[in-house]
Amino acid sequence: MTIVYPVKRRQFLVGTAGLASAAVTGLPAISQEGEKLPAYVAWKDPSDVIVHTSETLETTRAAQGDALITPSSDLYIRNNLPAPSDEIVADRDAWEMSIEGVAEPGAITLGDLKLLGSETVVAVLQCSGNGRAFFDHEASGSQWATGAAGNVIWTGVPVRAVVDAMGGIKGDMSFLTGTGGEEIPDGLPPESIQVERSVPVAAMEQAILAWDMNGEPIPLAHGGPLRLIVPGYYGVNNVKYLKRLAFTAEESPAKIQQTGYRVRPVGVSGDPSQPSMYEMSVKSWITGPLEDASTGRVRIEGLAMGGTSAVTGVEVSTDGGNNWQEAELLGPDMGPYAWRPFFLVVDLEAGMHTLASRATNGNGDTQPEEFEPNERGYGHNGWRGHAVEVNIG
Amino acid sequence: MTIVYPVKRRQFLVGTAGLASAAVTGLPAISQEGEKLPAYVAWKDPSDVIVHTSETLETTRAAQGDALITPSSDLYIRNNLPAPSDEIVADRDAWEMSIEGVAEPGAITLGDLKLLGSETVVAVLQCSGNGRAFFDHEASGSQWATGAAGNVIWTGVPVRAVVDAMGGIKGDMSFLTGTGGEEIPDGLPPESIQVERSVPVAAMEQAILAWDMNGEPIPLAHGGPLRLIVPGYYGVNNVKYLKRLAFTAEESPAKIQQTGYRVRPVGVSGDPSQPSMYEMSVKSWITGPLEDASTGRVRIEGLAMGGTSAVTGVEVSTDGGNNWQEAELLGPDMGPYAWRPFFLVVDLEAGMHTLASRATNGNGDTQPEEFEPNERGYGHNGWRGHAVEVNIG
Repeated sequence: MTIVYPVKRRQFLVGTAGLASAAVTGLPAISQEGEKLPAYVAWKDPSDVIVHTSETLETTRAAQGDALITPSSDLYIRNNLPAPSDEIVADRDAWEMSIEGVAEPGAITLGDLKLLGSETVVAVLQCSGNGRAFFDHEASGSQWATGAAGNVIWTGVPVRAVVDAMGGIKGDMSFLTGTGGEEIPDGLPPESIQVERSVPVAAMEQAILAWDMNGEPIPLAHGGPLRLIVPGYYGVNNVKYLKRLAFTAEESPAKIQQTGYRVRPVGVSGDPSQPSMYEMSVKSWITGPLEDASTGRVRIEGLAMGGTSAVTGVEVSTDGGNNWQEAELLGPDMGPYAWRPFFLVVDLEAGMHTLASRATNGNGDTQPEEFEPNERGYGHNGWRGHAVEVNIG
Repeated sequence: MTIVYPVKRRQFLVGTAGLASAAVTGLPAISQEGEKLPAYVAWKDPSDVIVHTSETLETTRAAQGDALITPSSDLYIRNNLPAPSDEIVADRDAWEMSIEGVAEPGAITLGDLKLLGSETVVAVLQCSGNGRAFFDHEASGSQWATGAAGNVIWTGVPVRAVVDAMGGIKGDMSFLTGTGGEEIPDGLPPESIQVERSVPVAAMEQAILAWDMNGEPIPLAHGGPLRLIVPGYYGVNNVKYLKRLAFTAEESPAKIQQTGYRVRPVGVSGDPSQPSMYEMSVKSWITGPLEDASTGRVRIEGLAMGGTSAVTGVEVSTDGGNNWQEAELLGPDMGPYAWRPFFLVVDLEAGMHTLASRATNGNGDTQPEEFEPNERGYGHNGWRGHAVEVNIG
């Protein structure tokens, strides 16, 4: 029996994980692509990330594998502004934020927030532009393939518990608006670059103000000491260094809200009438095998997410979508916002094979074959674009 | 409002996690207790572990916190023999093991095992001696408090799938016997020190041969490339560097099985008639607060595990067990073998408080107040011994 199975690049490292080797040997942290990890994320696993720019790092498709949870050392980075000074995580519980648009507005520290309750939720964090590389047109922005996404354990206080403690929402508010604590350079109007996002107020049902990520205080690079997590919503809505949470009648005036993250036809400018990048859609991709191999039995593996409704099933095709087989879901159900690893063992004959996956969620949504191009290359969940070609034999 | 909440030591580190700091600064990895991390586990987070000896490292109680999953960098280490050379993880899929006591016995590589199926299970890994420090008598062995336990995501092939592929169990076998791949020094009879454990054959229902831990290939220090995982069973039965799996009529002749890990009265020698350390029992412990603090509202947090049956509830007492309140379970249910974080927010007045927790599992088992001493200090799950004293005011 000749066998073929997904190869994780890091498995070639002698010893333990790549991070370990770097730490032990004292070698600088160089990613697979030969790019040096930026200092603020020098603790990432260099063998598992692709450095696009100092503010954009992607997890390799191979490293995503069939992991139930994405290790923090592998999780992607996408910063709209540079992170604040690490002084803000020196005394995390002293971090102060304001709550507005409630009956009793005011400032509250992270230490006090922890006494209002807590909840742990497993939720996919995914950049709006994940999959941009699979569009045919030249959409500007990082050319993410599959790796601007991870499955993360978040712990924090439910937004609804904070609202209850502050006397409830005041008036008829349509949006939940979060403001990030990044520094705004002098002389610039804040709304031009400030990271401030509004989501429909209904999202407060599942939103939390999170202080822990994967069982550890949220690293500065991922928005610690406090991050707004809106499970089921694209990454940009999960505001880092949260310094203000407001219930508002209107959407934020910030550019990132008004014209940024708007889905529109190619060549059209962003404006507030267009759909905003809010809820994620059903999606899946194969993470292995990714390389040519000999004829034989092949373990196909990948990841599937339902968006705002749990994945109910994944089909896999080895012939570019002519025939489909049901894959097996791996591991415990971690709730509607988590991804599910899947796998299928098949026999492949010599020749080229196009491996594709197609997920369905509890709402009955299934990934489309194609996904319409849009100006910024957002939200791609077409199965054909995510397919991989492997040469067997 | 004066507030008190659990303090994680690592939160005082500027930047991100302790490991990060060590990696960035190039400082040697020194644990909180000032002990240097052994080279083979230099990738552990020094601020979160206690180094007892080079083969025994414990997670600090504070670092355990309320984490749903124990990060690999925090997980305890307990080796009965030194780990083999890291050459065995240079090409993981080439690792070969033998399967015996089946209709078609033989050798199989890890690469081939991966084609027989896969399963992901979240299971507590816990040393038999966890809690030994809470016995009044002087039981020999590492003085583990709560930190020889972690909640881990394991991925591997179900033992029952391997058995099916090899024609089923041959004859009437009572035990599932796993043999570790540690090197046996010349001149020593293997049974004197070999790590070989037998568990009742019924445990094969949930047992897996695991290659991934927390989404990464199992580090050498934790038994990679292949480890037998028997969810619900004490750590010693989860044989590392698995080189042989056999269905046997009798228990292993190894000392670690015959006389080791036997529960017997203080002063009595081990023998095969005594109960072996197999199934874990219901247990919980508070992880915060652990230090004196001012009067006020306190967030009490901790961890609870059901053994072989899921935790159904946890009660917390702030007066040494006179009164109990139901705590809230955190996060998704990760299955019967996982632990559940819990928390309770209470108001504490000035003075000494004895904080205790008491868990119940699906079988209706509840932690006892006291736990009978035994020669080696195994299996302590008494709630009084695990209580913590804090001075408020």
